[in-house]
Amino acid sequence: MASNSEKTRAVVLLSGGMDSTVCAALAARDYQTSALHVSYGQRTEERERRAFVSICDTLGIESRLMVKNDALRVIGGSALTDHKITVPEWHAVGEDIPVTYVPFRNAHLLSIAVSWAEVIGANSIYIGAVAEDSSGYPDCRPEFYEAFQQVITLGTKPETSIEIRTPVIAMKKSEIVALGQRLEAPFELTWSCYRESDQACGDCDSCALRLRAFRAAGITDPITYLLDSKRFAY
Amino acid sequence: MASNSEKTRAVVLLSGGMDSTVCAALAARDYQTSALHVSYGQRTEERERRAFVSICDTLGIESRLMVKNDALRVIGGSALTDHKITVPEWHAVGEDIPVTYVPFRNAHLLSIAVSWAEVIGANSIYIGAVAEDSSGYPDCRPEFYEAFQQVITLGTKPETSIEIRTPVIAMKKSEIVALGQRLEAPFELTWSCYRESDQACGDCDSCALRLRAFRAAGITDPITYLLDSKRFAY
Repeated sequence: MASNSEKTRAVVLLSGGMDSTVCAALAARDYQTSALHVSYGQRTEERERRAFVSICDTLGIESRLMVKNDALRVIGGSALTDHKITVPEWHAVGEDIPVTYVPFRNAHLLSIAVSWAEVIGANSIYIGAVAEDSSGYPDCRPEFYEAFQQVITLGTKPETSIEIRTPVIAMKKSEIVALGQRLEAPFELTWSCYRESDQACGDCDSCALRLRAFRAAGITDPITYLLDSKRFAY
Repeated sequence: MASNSEKTRAVVLLSGGMDSTVCAALAARDYQTSALHVSYGQRTEERERRAFVSICDTLGIESRLMVKNDALRVIGGSALTDHKITVPEWHAVGEDIPVTYVPFRNAHLLSIAVSWAEVIGANSIYIGAVAEDSSGYPDCRPEFYEAFQQVITLGTKPETSIEIRTPVIAMKKSEIVALGQRLEAPFELTWSCYRESDQACGDCDSCALRLRAFRAAGITDPITYLLDSKRFAY
């Protein structure tokens, strides 16, 4: 095992949800880790920032960056950033791209991570995208990250070497829960709800996917829900 | 010629410099055009915004978005955004990527343009990148835009169709000046200087490239320079 001083550095995109927290636990195990949170006008951004700070504290990640992305907030076009668009209940989410899709969001997040990684000399970027067992956002698919890898290679300095890592992209959400438990990821500090900031609603797409994942993993979700009684209906 | 109502919409990234202004003139000739300016902590951002507004007024572009990108300002790592790094004089710029390179900046700019284009239903994004006859930034090369095109195709909704257009990427700067003159682009309103906001310095890399371009095109640059006497030395 390399000592800390020999480890190379990784940037992890840490929203504070369960998937990114498991990625942060993985990164912190293997690298000197710098954590990035982006507020883009999402309804729960303040709650996310609190989760981010406490997760970094628990995982021993001292190098942190919290930035605002004003463009996504102003551009809107998503139920997460435009309060005139309602966040649907999970059972109302159909086959199409859901209204919670934030247009091209993950390209913004990766761009910030790449700029930061290039300046601080990090060689990896961890992102907790999940492809199949998720909401079906186009910017969560493996081929999106393969294409973005090309953009990084071509758009940074010749001496810069940055690799995108998507360790949970092909996993089921229940496998991510199990992995997180093995890594002792602090699930009790995470925040997934799209709608609420005090207690998770238990009824949006994100809460539903999370509750179903914990249930399938046979592990009790340590956070509480407003609509906890519904959890076994998913 | 299609009437305005039949035209599809284009987004143009308009910094207010000569290259992006020529692109805006091209876009405005052929499309319903929406113009985007991004302030990312560059030294001259206020001056750029003034240029942006007056160029839009002159070209008849009513649909405008001016946004702040706080991440690039906070991350720094460039003489344009970090005031502790000096903007070098043009003759001090060597073979390496110059210190005025803003890490991965054009990925941020494109990401904002794509999100906006997807929400307003624009099908093209114009960007005034120049590859050979320029400062040698990695994110100004054609292959960077080809790779980013893939990212757009994969990272947006299936029904979204957005094409990046780089009409001046292979041109010499003097050819861009000549094209701008044919299009009656308002060069007198443009701003290229990296350093100053009242009168262009005439001595930074950006001023030098511009002055050399006008000279080679045999056209008088309509703006004035602090160090105008040097212009024939480039």
